[in-house]
Amino acid sequence: MDEFMRAAIEEARKGLAEGGIPIGSVLVCDGRIIGRGHNQRVQKKSAVLHAEMDCLENAGRLSAAEYRKSTLYSTLSPCDMCSGTVLLYGIPRVVVGENETFKGPESYLSSRGVELELLDSDECKSLMRGFIREKPELWSEDIGK
Amino acid sequence: MDEFMRAAIEEARKGLAEGGIPIGSVLVCDGRIIGRGHNQRVQKKSAVLHAEMDCLENAGRLSAAEYRKSTLYSTLSPCDMCSGTVLLYGIPRVVVGENETFKGPESYLSSRGVELELLDSDECKSLMRGFIREKPELWSEDIGK
Repeated sequence: MDEFMRAAIEEARKGLAEGGIPIGSVLVCDGRIIGRGHNQRVQKKSAVLHAEMDCLENAGRLSAAEYRKSTLYSTLSPCDMCSGTVLLYGIPRVVVGENETFKGPESYLSSRGVELELLDSDECKSLMRGFIREKPELWSEDIGK
Repeated sequence: MDEFMRAAIEEARKGLAEGGIPIGSVLVCDGRIIGRGHNQRVQKKSAVLHAEMDCLENAGRLSAAEYRKSTLYSTLSPCDMCSGTVLLYGIPRVVVGENETFKGPESYLSSRGVELELLDSDECKSLMRGFIREKPELWSEDIGK
């Protein structure tokens, strides 16, 4: 397993241990993690801090030049909000743990020039499946369903 | 001027008075403002709290049913991130103060079924033009340029 997806999974597991939604994300620039985060719906009562958003918020204010040489890792396929944020900042590459339990607008991201890599990780799927089985209402809320 | 856009402009002016980026937003449900916010890049050193995001965060965790009967007001055309958030939550209608100083993916939002209303407000344009003239680097950072 890629060391950066490993770090994203660690974030997801932190979220789960806090009673939250087990999705994690890291931002990598020049081979180094410059931001990490996990879904904060439960912990911060947040409507906007999905894992990718929390990661980008924790990375702090960056220049366009930094975003444009970064890769965003997420344990789950990014939703419309997180995909839109990738587009806003011109992040050129997204590595996705899995897209079976949820699939965001991947073809739209590709059509806008973002490179997507899907790792199809059983560990990521298992984390989400266990969570969705236990807390289906919380999961529905997180994806606006 | 529509009372809700008036409230969004008040938010934008609050942001300006704090040394921030003058963009404001309110969320309206059943004829009542249930969230309001303004860009927090300077004030909270935030990379994700555009006005619309701050407004939705301040509105708190809502049900899909609430989002689906809400209207989001923004003094400026929503960027890719904020438009993606509208799509995530299925907010059916967005009222935009102006789209001359910046234009987000409006046709994509329309293609996904979101109703857009443009007020073409001189007051909103004037706020943004003054700000962009004074702090062009801050503005570039906010839109990932």
